[in-house]
Amino acid sequence: MPETADELARRVAAHMLSREGTGPAWGIAIEEMREGYARLSMTITANMLNGYGTAHGGMIFALADTAFAYACNSRNVSSVVQQASIVFLTAVREGERLTAEASEHGLAGRSGVYSVIVRNTLDAEVAVFQGLSRAIGGTVIAAG
Amino acid sequence: MPETADELARRVAAHMLSREGTGPAWGIAIEEMREGYARLSMTITANMLNGYGTAHGGMIFALADTAFAYACNSRNVSSVVQQASIVFLTAVREGERLTAEASEHGLAGRSGVYSVIVRNTLDAEVAVFQGLSRAIGGTVIAAG
Amino acid sequence: MPETADELARRVAAHMLSREGTGPAWGIAIEEMREGYARLSMTITANMLNGYGTAHGGMIFALADTAFAYACNSRNVSSVVQQASIVFLTAVREGERLTAEASEHGLAGRSGVYSVIVRNTLDAEVAVFQGLSRAIGGTVIAAG
Amino acid sequence: MPETADELARRVAAHMLSREGTGPAWGIAIEEMREGYARLSMTITANMLNGYGTAHGGMIFALADTAFAYACNSRNVSSVVQQASIVFLTAVREGERLTAEASEHGLAGRSGVYSVIVRNTLDAEVAVFQGLSRAIGGTVIAAG
Repeated sequence: MPETADELARRVAAHMLSREGTGPAWGIAIEEMREGYARLSMTITANMLNGYGTAHGGMIFALADTAFAYACNSRNVSSVVQQASIVFLTAVREGERLTAEASEHGLAGRSGVYSVIVRNTLDAEVAVFQGLSRAIGGTVIAAG
Repeated sequence: MPETADELARRVAAHMLSREGTGPAWGIAIEEMREGYARLSMTITANMLNGYGTAHGGMIFALADTAFAYACNSRNVSSVVQQASIVFLTAVREGERLTAEASEHGLAGRSGVYSVIVRNTLDAEVAVFQGLSRAIGGTVIAAG
Repeated sequence: MPETADELARRVAAHMLSREGTGPAWGIAIEEMREGYARLSMTITANMLNGYGTAHGGMIFALADTAFAYACNSRNVSSVVQQASIVFLTAVREGERLTAEASEHGLAGRSGVYSVIVRNTLDAEVAVFQGLSRAIGGTVIAAG
Repeated sequence: MPETADELARRVAAHMLSREGTGPAWGIAIEEMREGYARLSMTITANMLNGYGTAHGGMIFALADTAFAYACNSRNVSSVVQQASIVFLTAVREGERLTAEASEHGLAGRSGVYSVIVRNTLDAEVAVFQGLSRAIGGTVIAAG
């Protein structure tokens, strides 16, 4: 039985996570993967806090950027992040579990645009991210 | 019978368009308005072209920004654009009719985040826009 | 005597402006051109106003985007805008003359990053813009 | 002898760094602080790498965002990051030392716009960042 597009997306993301130095450092978990879509989660720990004692924007960006990377590589075409924009809406405290959901908004040629919404445990929006990817050729993993 | 949220959104957008110097200059048409949502259209004319003979990015941004403004004012709370980011995916020729669809992605306090997707007549994505609004207090029109 | 880099930049910008449908529509004037640098001006007219009676963000973006385009094409390598981000700081009234100054912030391969600062007559910042260009090959004008 | 604006900027940044959980986790060093200006450095370690074995975009953003935060708080007026946009230009390998230089581009009311350029050891641009801050009132440290 051939691999479906969503199964391939899951296999690509699992491979990417297993290769990342940041994956264990940040405690990234894959919640759901589909073609052009990723949902990840991460818990804010003490070493992710800024001087106000809330989650550093860099860590919120890092989670969103990882969800974006898994979504834009989900068709197993190696793609890199060219540009990203993020708006921060709500402060996040230590111990909160964040979820980042990446969806495809547009594709043309080698370019793709994705939005990522980061939510807290109460499902309130913490940050909204938009990213531009560029396919660089080659595959992430061997075809299934 | 009280006015619904979607009726109010339509009334606000119609009022805004009627007051804009740019509305007639650009030929903006309102296709659909709902609470937190706007869909507009505009045809690319000769005085909107750049040196390559395709639609100037400034005009594509202007259409997206207008849809964003109508969506973020749709609850009749005066709001202004603080920041916007746009990715251009496809060139647009003279005579093409563009549609811009603005949706709400996140709200917190006075801030709102909206995405706008601009499509051409063939429904291909031309540009993807993300904007940050700030409510400044007051209403756009008198309550219905 | 060979053409200098700055002379080439001036010639490219003059050519681009002469080909744009938007140039006369918007009243764009070239104030200064150098390699990787552009300074333009534009006066806000009645048909550039939004419903609040101030300059539409789309027109402020359009001026910044034009300065960016002239700067990123200044070496006579055809380049297009891929992405741009803008922050709006101050409202602008009818009759104000805006200046947009584009500078190069980074280059790598086919990509370039430029910032554009838009100021009003009192030299206060009206908007700050950052754009990503991509060289597409070919020249804008014949070599001098 | 009263404290100068640049001395205050140094004192604020040292205080912020000392309070951050991320400071030691990321190995952030302050190279130079002035009013409205910050220059930081950070070395890319194994737990900062993505699946391609290069620096994760999230870590490059995190460094730029930290420089931005120190610069926009440098007058000792508590300020938070509302929005940021980043372009990635060059991949970075393990062991490279990055420098992030944040400069002020515009101020109006409570809003500030800063650009940050991230460079590698060879002084090549790695990323260019633009951020929007908002002053929230209060001071970061007690006046000197």
